[in-house]
Amino acid sequence: MRNLSPTEIDDIIDVAHALADAAREATLSHFRTAALTADTKEADRFDPVTVADRLSEERMRAILAARRPQDAILGEEYGARPGTSGLTWVLDPIDGTRSYLAGTPTWGVLISIADEGGPIYGLIDQPYVGERFEGGLGRATMTGPHWTRPLSTRPARPLGEALLMSTFPEVGTPEEGAAFHRLSRQCRLTRYGTDCYAYALVAAGHVDLVVEAGLQAYDVQAPIAVITAAGGVVTDWQGNPAHQGGRILAAANHEVHAAAMAVLNGA
Amino acid sequence: MRNLSPTEIDDIIDVAHALADAAREATLSHFRTAALTADTKEADRFDPVTVADRLSEERMRAILAARRPQDAILGEEYGARPGTSGLTWVLDPIDGTRSYLAGTPTWGVLISIADEGGPIYGLIDQPYVGERFEGGLGRATMTGPHWTRPLSTRPARPLGEALLMSTFPEVGTPEEGAAFHRLSRQCRLTRYGTDCYAYALVAAGHVDLVVEAGLQAYDVQAPIAVITAAGGVVTDWQGNPAHQGGRILAAANHEVHAAAMAVLNGA
Repeated sequence: MRNLSPTEIDDIIDVAHALADAAREATLSHFRTAALTADTKEADRFDPVTVADRLSEERMRAILAARRPQDAILGEEYGARPGTSGLTWVLDPIDGTRSYLAGTPTWGVLISIADEGGPIYGLIDQPYVGERFEGGLGRATMTGPHWTRPLSTRPARPLGEALLMSTFPEVGTPEEGAAFHRLSRQCRLTRYGTDCYAYALVAAGHVDLVVEAGLQAYDVQAPIAVITAAGGVVTDWQGNPAHQGGRILAAANHEVHAAAMAVLNGA
Repeated sequence: MRNLSPTEIDDIIDVAHALADAAREATLSHFRTAALTADTKEADRFDPVTVADRLSEERMRAILAARRPQDAILGEEYGARPGTSGLTWVLDPIDGTRSYLAGTPTWGVLISIADEGGPIYGLIDQPYVGERFEGGLGRATMTGPHWTRPLSTRPARPLGEALLMSTFPEVGTPEEGAAFHRLSRQCRLTRYGTDCYAYALVAAGHVDLVVEAGLQAYDVQAPIAVITAAGGVVTDWQGNPAHQGGRILAAANHEVHAAAMAVLNGA
């Protein structure tokens, strides 16, 4: 990781929270409104995007243009903007747009900043509940409606006592789905429907494993930063770096990560 | 429905909120604590109950003993207590104990009161988010962290535009599951993992359908009261009263209810 001055670190964290505050206001302005409708980004399946996704990313990009014009941006809705600093902000203005459309409180805003090696700091924000989970650059903290707490993942436990999460029961390709369900059958409990909130729950010490497939860089870089800072491990299903997306295995600790990876790969 | 005086109605609503306030405190005192563990109520599957389920129901029963000793009680953890008034409080101290254990914010406290004909008033409370959805006895309202709003279900739309929810993808028996997935394939979007929160989202106008099987009276009476007050329809899969539990079809309106029931029954 590159060497950043304390002043630079403070500025990055301050800007990240400003982005999250702006995204919170933008997303809440349309959440649970009767007029909210979705376009689909793909003709063959329902991949929704709403006015709120776009507004949230526009607001964040405007802040970055004013305060961090030297940094690059990669955003879900408006793509890549080059920079000169070697740092890249990676933005998912609403992770879990289906959840957002349904009114559930498990979607989130994902904000992270990466150098050449991957994400160095990230945050997961749930605007409706009013929760923010952040990790990296010396931080690992959550704030919410009832408490502020350090983030720390769970200690190791056998797969048979582990709690697994994924957004949909149909995980990836049929082969990937079979691997996922092989793992699910060995865990105590599997829960669906959680989007990025599942990663926040790993970081906060409540969930052992999140397994997904087909993710994008903007879906996973903030979770990687937050979970790693809290003591967990995030890789692809082969144990390699996952910050470009793809198949994701997020784990509370190295032991449950190794056990889950063995099952995903056919053990 | 029996004739209740305005004073009696006010007392019932006041007591219901007192129960919800007590349950909120009880459940939050253990939510997301490292010491939280679960017993399982059935040997052959993980049907968890925690100290929080028991504490929440104990606190509510103590309030009822003091303020409404004439009413009967049916509670998930402590069973039935007879009464003399012809009214029965139906309590689920934590609906979605698995969700509670996982730290997600979609479990809830279900409180309702029934006469001979079924539930006349109910509320769904989500303690962590700080949301309360109530319906019956002239009320249909939600309060939450960002707004207070009347509850009103969505207008009719074709199944192909409908949003369906259920707690698990494995709905009931294999035959019930096949019926559910036949319906799911005709809907635009299916979301899992929501427990009682799904019913609240129907009442609030964000979701069209909730379909479940194998429910108990205490799982469904509060949702019936809230959704009915908001303009929706809750029956079993044959269109009959559902307040004793079983197979549940909750719908935003009569049109989507009829369309979903036809598919569930093999059309």
